[in-house]
Amino acid sequence: MKITTVKGTSDYLPEEVALRDSMQSAILRTYRSAGYEHISTPAIEDIENLDKSEGGDNLNLIFKILKRGEKLEEALASGDAHELCDMGLRYDLTLPLCRYYANNKAHLPAPFKSIQVDRVYRAERPQKGRMREFVQCDIDILGDASPAAEVDLILTTARALGSLDIGHFRIRINDRRILRSILSSQGFPTESLDTVSVSFDKLDKIGVEGVIAELTEKGFEPAAIEAFRAFLENKPQTPEEAASFGADSEAVASLRAIMDAAEALSDGTWEVVFDVSLVRGQGYYTGTVFEVESKDFRGAVGGGGRYDNLVGKFIGEKVPAVGFSIGFERIFGILKQQGKKTLESRPRAVIFFSGDSAADALPAQKAAAALRGEWDVTVAAMPKKLGKALSRYAERGFTAYMVVGQDDVLKELK
Amino acid sequence: MKITTVKGTSDYLPEEVALRDSMQSAILRTYRSAGYEHISTPAIEDIENLDKSEGGDNLNLIFKILKRGEKLEEALASGDAHELCDMGLRYDLTLPLCRYYANNKAHLPAPFKSIQVDRVYRAERPQKGRMREFVQCDIDILGDASPAAEVDLILTTARALGSLDIGHFRIRINDRRILRSILSSQGFPTESLDTVSVSFDKLDKIGVEGVIAELTEKGFEPAAIEAFRAFLENKPQTPEEAASFGADSEAVASLRAIMDAAEALSDGTWEVVFDVSLVRGQGYYTGTVFEVESKDFRGAVGGGGRYDNLVGKFIGEKVPAVGFSIGFERIFGILKQQGKKTLESRPRAVIFFSGDSAADALPAQKAAAALRGEWDVTVAAMPKKLGKALSRYAERGFTAYMVVGQDDVLKELK
Repeated sequence: MKITTVKGTSDYLPEEVALRDSMQSAILRTYRSAGYEHISTPAIEDIENLDKSEGGDNLNLIFKILKRGEKLEEALASGDAHELCDMGLRYDLTLPLCRYYANNKAHLPAPFKSIQVDRVYRAERPQKGRMREFVQCDIDILGDASPAAEVDLILTTARALGSLDIGHFRIRINDRRILRSILSSQGFPTESLDTVSVSFDKLDKIGVEGVIAELTEKGFEPAAIEAFRAFLENKPQTPEEAASFGADSEAVASLRAIMDAAEALSDGTWEVVFDVSLVRGQGYYTGTVFEVESKDFRGAVGGGGRYDNLVGKFIGEKVPAVGFSIGFERIFGILKQQGKKTLESRPRAVIFFSGDSAADALPAQKAAAALRGEWDVTVAAMPKKLGKALSRYAERGFTAYMVVGQDDVLKELK
Repeated sequence: MKITTVKGTSDYLPEEVALRDSMQSAILRTYRSAGYEHISTPAIEDIENLDKSEGGDNLNLIFKILKRGEKLEEALASGDAHELCDMGLRYDLTLPLCRYYANNKAHLPAPFKSIQVDRVYRAERPQKGRMREFVQCDIDILGDASPAAEVDLILTTARALGSLDIGHFRIRINDRRILRSILSSQGFPTESLDTVSVSFDKLDKIGVEGVIAELTEKGFEPAAIEAFRAFLENKPQTPEEAASFGADSEAVASLRAIMDAAEALSDGTWEVVFDVSLVRGQGYYTGTVFEVESKDFRGAVGGGGRYDNLVGKFIGEKVPAVGFSIGFERIFGILKQQGKKTLESRPRAVIFFSGDSAADALPAQKAAAALRGEWDVTVAAMPKKLGKALSRYAERGFTAYMVVGQDDVLKELK
């Protein structure tokens, strides 16, 4: 039998789970305090729902579940590998949320403010920092087209991040309509806007000349490319500057309003900054996109955006939607590196009893029961070397102990 | 796109998740207060670990995950259906716990008292009450052979069940060694003890004559069968009565000690009763087995037992182990039917603002922030029909509201 976890997944030790639990409850408490409601969906979804979703690269990363019984035999006989599976593990929480909303709309308020804190699965090539099973923490507002929804998500996410004690952070913000309208006005054809955005997204990596070379290679009009070069060399720093490059005025106004409202409510530990180059990978975003950046946490610790067309794929009517996700695993990884213990815990004590029969433990169990209002108390057989055992308990965070039948008093453990 | 969940799995509405969350935190709090430590393992395990485990019927219920990339192509080319999968979803939390202990032993205390609250998966034929994805809540003690471990598990599980407000319950208890030693003394061969136990397990369904007929058909010695009939017709009601049928004296003494110690510490809401017919399905149990029974909850709401050989399959050395699991889904189902709401919650308020721009929401967001010490507060656009909207909020459990810019006072909502 193999004792390690499957590649890309992880066992968590008690002290790690204590930290993860306390992070999750801090996040959940903050989300709930802003009126969001916790929901739960299965980790397994119909394979067709997953395959037909607009998950971008994630569609290549779906863990597929083999059919069973007769249906498996039929599939094997057909010789068609695409027929082998009927279900898959979800790769994010957004697609399941849209299905959930369609399935349960009659029982949900409008607008609906949801919380999801759950595991997702991606068949990534195992490598450091790329996990195949990990936790996402999402809030979403469904059924609200107003920019007040974005503000609510930003404020709530910022408070949740604040509760995790991650220090100062910046929320980069953009609107997909801004880049698209600029590109259109420069003469790029509508059907190529995504391709150009993808090249643009590489700006940090390949520089202005790299992007221009890529667009030239793709065969776009020289005039459009030249206009785009001017834009790249003078990247707009505000939504208003973007407007001067031909950005859609409604998108500019909406973004400005969101930024101003959010900044007005910031407690000073975070700020909102416009970043015209922010695109994000998911295919389903239609408007605002966000990403949270923390110096201490090297890179993105959150992200999200508006996806007004995804719910409609399930219910046929358009339902505006916007969500914000916290990068739980990255924050956990860094807090752990920083040596952070659980954010909340009760004091722990151990009570020792002599003997090894069930009856011998009785007085210790009674003493433990009496202390549990205030303490987490474990009952243990008296170790051969008490001193050594006590140092081990102290290392694990225990702060008191008692030896039943010897002194029956709770003593401090250092 | 399909809007329903895959068969045998479930979406949970906000009020259901509120109840489930509060049940889980009550259970977790109780477990922690007795010194158990929360751990976490992946939902995905290596397919060989799952296949080679002693999971009994559950081995036929494993959801298998298709290989990917080149390895899938090789498997398809080989034409061997057994080669198609490399991983599977766990069917319980006990096998992963044993693997976990083997993998992390160096970092764990001895004995190790673990908590697991997590999802498991079984490819059951979908039918009422049989779920394919469900939550298990387990505590286990690894590395403690003493019956004091059983007592600790019983007391802690009883307290956890008590915290869920399920009324009076009985803990049925037995020791697998008792039945096995009785059968041996009656002349059944050692290698057939499991088969005979399986027939015995059907006593409630097929009666004494049914069991006898089955054993006769299986071709056992008439003398052994007659001795077994005498046992069936005078089923022992105590461990001591079992001793008179030839039960192993060590098992009898251990069971008696466990029962007495547990009873001595009961708060009167539960009792421990000996049941010689209790077997339980898992192949891996070696000694004590428990099952919790509640009249109000029609059937088992918990179960467990000692499995002293399972960890050894991973680690090569024998590690005694015993665990107790709470039937979370059954208890949730009944509490829900009883109309039980969340066991703990903060009061909820809604603050309305007029307008639909991001700026319009600012005063409401400020008012909400000021109230969140005590309240969960949601900010919402002023509805067209306030009265109707307020009744809907009241139905959802909101108890106060405010209209910003109109009166700015929190008013009671009934």
